[in-house]
Order: sequence, then C-alpha cells, then structure tokens
Amino acid sequence: MRNTQVVFVKTPAGAVAEDCFDIVTSDVAPVLDGQVLVRNLYLSCDPYMRGRMGANGFALGRVIPARVVGEVLESKHPAFNPGDVVWDFLGWETYTLVKEPSSLRKINPKHGPLSFGISVLGMPGLTAEVGMIGLGRPMPGDTVVVSAASGAVGQVAGQLAKLAGARVIGTVGSERKARHIVDELGFDAALDYRANANDLRGALNQLCPDGVDVYFDNVGGPMLEAVLGRLNTFARVPVCGQISNYNDPDNAGVRGLGRLVAVRATMTGFVIYDHMHRFDTFVPRMAGLLASGKMKYHEDIIDGIENTPQAFIGMMRGDNLGKRLVRVAPDPE
Amino acid sequence: MRNTQVVFVKTPAGAVAEDCFDIVTSDVAPVLDGQVLVRNLYLSCDPYMRGRMGANGFALGRVIPARVVGEVLESKHPAFNPGDVVWDFLGWETYTLVKEPSSLRKINPKHGPLSFGISVLGMPGLTAEVGMIGLGRPMPGDTVVVSAASGAVGQVAGQLAKLAGARVIGTVGSERKARHIVDELGFDAALDYRANANDLRGALNQLCPDGVDVYFDNVGGPMLEAVLGRLNTFARVPVCGQISNYNDPDNAGVRGLGRLVAVRATMTGFVIYDHMHRFDTFVPRMAGLLASGKMKYHEDIIDGIENTPQAFIGMMRGDNLGKRLVRVAPDPE
Repeated sequence: MRNTQVVFVKTPAGAVAEDCFDIVTSDVAPVLDGQVLVRNLYLSCDPYMRGRMGANGFALGRVIPARVVGEVLESKHPAFNPGDVVWDFLGWETYTLVKEPSSLRKINPKHGPLSFGISVLGMPGLTAEVGMIGLGRPMPGDTVVVSAASGAVGQVAGQLAKLAGARVIGTVGSERKARHIVDELGFDAALDYRANANDLRGALNQLCPDGVDVYFDNVGGPMLEAVLGRLNTFARVPVCGQISNYNDPDNAGVRGLGRLVAVRATMTGFVIYDHMHRFDTFVPRMAGLLASGKMKYHEDIIDGIENTPQAFIGMMRGDNLGKRLVRVAPDPE
Repeated sequence: MRNTQVVFVKTPAGAVAEDCFDIVTSDVAPVLDGQVLVRNLYLSCDPYMRGRMGANGFALGRVIPARVVGEVLESKHPAFNPGDVVWDFLGWETYTLVKEPSSLRKINPKHGPLSFGISVLGMPGLTAEVGMIGLGRPMPGDTVVVSAASGAVGQVAGQLAKLAGARVIGTVGSERKARHIVDELGFDAALDYRANANDLRGALNQLCPDGVDVYFDNVGGPMLEAVLGRLNTFARVPVCGQISNYNDPDNAGVRGLGRLVAVRATMTGFVIYDHMHRFDTFVPRMAGLLASGKMKYHEDIIDGIENTPQAFIGMMRGDNLGKRLVRVAPDPE
C-alpha cells in the first residue's frame, strides 16, 4: 500500500507558494502492536499553520502535521476497531500509521458529516465557543464584530453571539461572503473590508452606530485599528488570530491602542490547546445546535491530496467560503 | 483677595506650548451658603491632561481643571472648617471657591507631606495599586516591567511589584532616572529607552532573560512593541497610559500584537475613576507602607503659579524626576 504525502521543503519568505511543498510517495509500514493505521479522509488547512512555517516550526523534509479525519483500517490497539472514524493531529498524507493512538478521538457519525470532526465539532468550533462565550461574553443588546466571519471559526463565533442576543456584524473579503453570512448564517450585517479599504473606519461606524462591545479578532491589522476606535466602555477583544500579519511581520502596526485605556477594554489572546478538557461536553452541545438548525456551518472542500498546497495557499488569500478542507478519500460506506 | 489662574486658550497641535495658556487675575467671589473657599497649595501636572487638551476636552477660555491640595480658608459648609487640608479636582489657580464641597477629601497631615494627597496617597498611588495588584497580579519570581518607572504612578507600581516578590525592571528616559529607581527605589534594573533607542528589544531581552510576566504600560509605542515580543505565557499587560502617542496620534503603530495569541496574554486598559470606592482603605494602607519605609516616593516640585505651564510642558518631555507638582502657596503652619 502506497502513502502520498505533502512534505514541507522550503520556508516561505512572505506569502506561501507551491515550491514550499513537495508531494512524495512511499510504502506504508506494517502495523505493530499498540499501533493503528488510519486511512485519511479529510485534511485540514488552517491559518495558524502559516505561523509554523517559520523558525522552530514544521520540520523541513517531513510531512506537514495537520488535523485529519480518517477511518481506522487496521488496529493493534484495544481501544480502536477497523471502521472507527477518528480525528487527531496526523498529517497531510493519505495514510497515517499512528504509533501513539491514545490521542485519537472517535467521531460519532450521527453528529453530522464526518468532516465536522475537524471543523464545527472540532477545534475551530471549540475555538469559537471559548473565544466568544468565554472571553467575549456577549450580552443581549451588545454589538459584536467578528472578523474573517465566513471562515472556519468566525461563522461559529458570530452565530454564538446571535444566540446570546447580540447584534452581530461580520467582516469578510468579498461581496459573495458578505451575502453568505447575512443571508445564510443570519448575521445582522457584513462589512467587505476590501471594498471599503479606503474608509474602513467610516464603514464600520455606519454599521455600528452604538459602538462595539465585543470584537472577535481573527485578522489584526487595519481592521483591529478601525474597531479599536469604536470600542464601548468595558469592551472585550478576544484575539484568536492576526492573519493579516502572518505573511508580513514588518507591517505598519496598530495605532490607537490608547483607546483601550479610555474605554477600559480588555484584549486577550487565547489558544485552544489550553481548553481541550472542554471537548467532551462541547461536541454534543454543538451537535445539538446543528441538529436543531440553530447553528449552520459551511465547509469548502477541495478534492485530491495533490491539491493540498493550492488549497492552503488559496485559503491564505481568502478564496474559501467556509472551513477549507481537502478530501483525499471517499467516506466509508 | 485676588485669584491667579492658568487659563486654557489654544488647542495644541502636537506638543503643548506656552501659548496654549494664559495667566490672568481676578477677584475672588464672596463665599455663599454651602460653599467653601480653598487656598490652593499644590497643583497637579499629569500626562492624562494632554488628552483633555483636544476636542471635547478642557473648555477654551476657562481655568485648567486639575487635582489640587489646598487649605480651607473660609467655610459655609458644615463638614469643613478653616484650616482643614483637602484635595479635589479644582484648578490651576491660587484660590478656588468650591460650590459643591461634598467631593472634597480631607488630608490627614499625619500621613506625610500634604502634597502626598494628590500623589502617592492620591490618585497616582491608587492607580498604581489597581493596575499592578488588581490587573498585573505579580507573583513571587515573576519578571515585571514598568514603563515611566520614575514617574508619579510608575515608581509606586514598581515598588508594589517588588513587595509582591517579583523581579522589577523600570524603563526611564535618562541615566539620572535609571540610577534613581535602582539606587533609591530598589528596582532590580533600569532600561534607559533613550540611550537604547537603536536596540530596545536587545536591551530588554538582556535585562529580562526569563521573559516578562507583567508589563505595566504607561507609554505605548516602541517600548510596548519591544515588551510584546518578550511576554511569557499568560502574561498580563495593564495599560495605564500611552504617553508616547499623546502628541502624535499618527504614530507608527504597534507591531507584533499576534504575540498576545501565542502566549495567551491579556492587555487591559483601566481608568482610576472606576475604582474610587477603594480610596478609604487605600490611604491608610499606603500611608503605613510609607511610614515603615517599605515604600519611597519622590516628588518634583516647581514653585510659583506662573511656572505651571512650563512645569507641565517639561513633564511631557520627561524633565521631572518623580511626581510633578506646582507649589503655589506655603504649607499652613
């Protein structure tokens, strides 16, 4: 049996390009005692991975580590049986021989599409809950702004704020995404940051006449700067990511941080790995919201392991509508 | 009796200059029922006042509002007697007729110099306690950085962190101040940001080999940027002020806010007016620290109401060593 892998071969300077990756094949090693062989189904593409493509990050010459949904093909570990669907940090490859299977998490197929295990029912969904509910703490009547609002995390964060009774504005990078989050996901309004790049502040002020109580920040940069100027007293700014800077550490910087003082606001960075103990209660809770129709979730699935580099590169440009995944094998029957 | 007042006559563009102020004299009005006449002793010069010298701030043509220590000369209010020493928001003037005396706070002369009522035993001292203890939460062994460390607030913030068992580095703008905070106030080290302007980050890293757990930010700008890169996991950044931007809202901005995510740090702006209920317990507590020698406090006192504009302008440049005050009358006997 042959494994196809996406290998990290070059540290990008600026934007990630195809030549940072190589696609190689090799034989799958035999399964030893205590191990599990997983046939990978869905590979995750996430913005945080850009941060691992620099110093002290992904090892050159090795498969790119990533979250994966897969099917157990062969198990020599008592906790897993062939046919189990699981997710874990595996890699951008078609098969993974898991040497330490204890961290594999089983996916309940009754909870929805299997891919949800690494999207709305996985770390992006939990990230949205921890950031929006735990740190953002939206109250009924609050105005909430979510950046990258159609993305893997943003779409959940915005809908959670709606469920909490807030008015929710999403910022996105295209007219299509703007329509999507309002018409399909129920956001109150959308701000297209590209169409309004000349006057981000003016566009934001118009959409947030009562100021901003919570800003769920996925992007940093000029959008953060614009929102800072609009923050209300005791505003909360959970900082999930700063994608606008990932390719450009020498960016212009964020002005107006003094606003934090004037309005007694709090910015808090968070990382989902600190919250994994919440997973077991999170999954059925979010599955219930999905089943009832109170939460909608959109995935943007590219087919074929060989398209993984472009799938990632396109996501960093904002081509995707919803959570970007790569399907490398069909779902089990 | 004649009153001398410093009147705000021009909104500064950039740095504050003498022509923003005029010095005028007028007759003191007679004291009516319920009123108190205060002979002012010490006038406060504080960086936050720069922020009030723009739109929606101090009224043009009126005396500059400021915290003042004064002696009650005449009282037609039952709570005050001639000879009482009080502080309140009065103004840069030699006499204030207080029409609503209920907010006057009496100063206990046993607690130290009367001027302490608007410095270490007043709002600057309480600001330091709320920011450092309430938000910074230094633990024994933590590394704490305080900017504007020889200033009205910074010197108290740093010493409170020392008392909590932290290693404390202060950033200052001169060699003289650097020596002062280490030799006189007991800071572990000082960073002269002017002498190290070419490599702030390198100088900071050298002084903080174990990273930074708490950054008490009084200045914003390049120092904040340098500290961000050095923050430890779960670092706290109470933001008290951003004096480096007050004259220059179109500054270069702060890069590297993504570090907040990586280390799960929290930046929190705060304003002392939200914490005035703490005052009654704060004053005796801080007075005790001063009496025992565990807290030292340095004031930088300029004499003469006519020198108030220059006293303020010099403070904005960093000329002062310690809390800048203007003495406009001798202490009562």
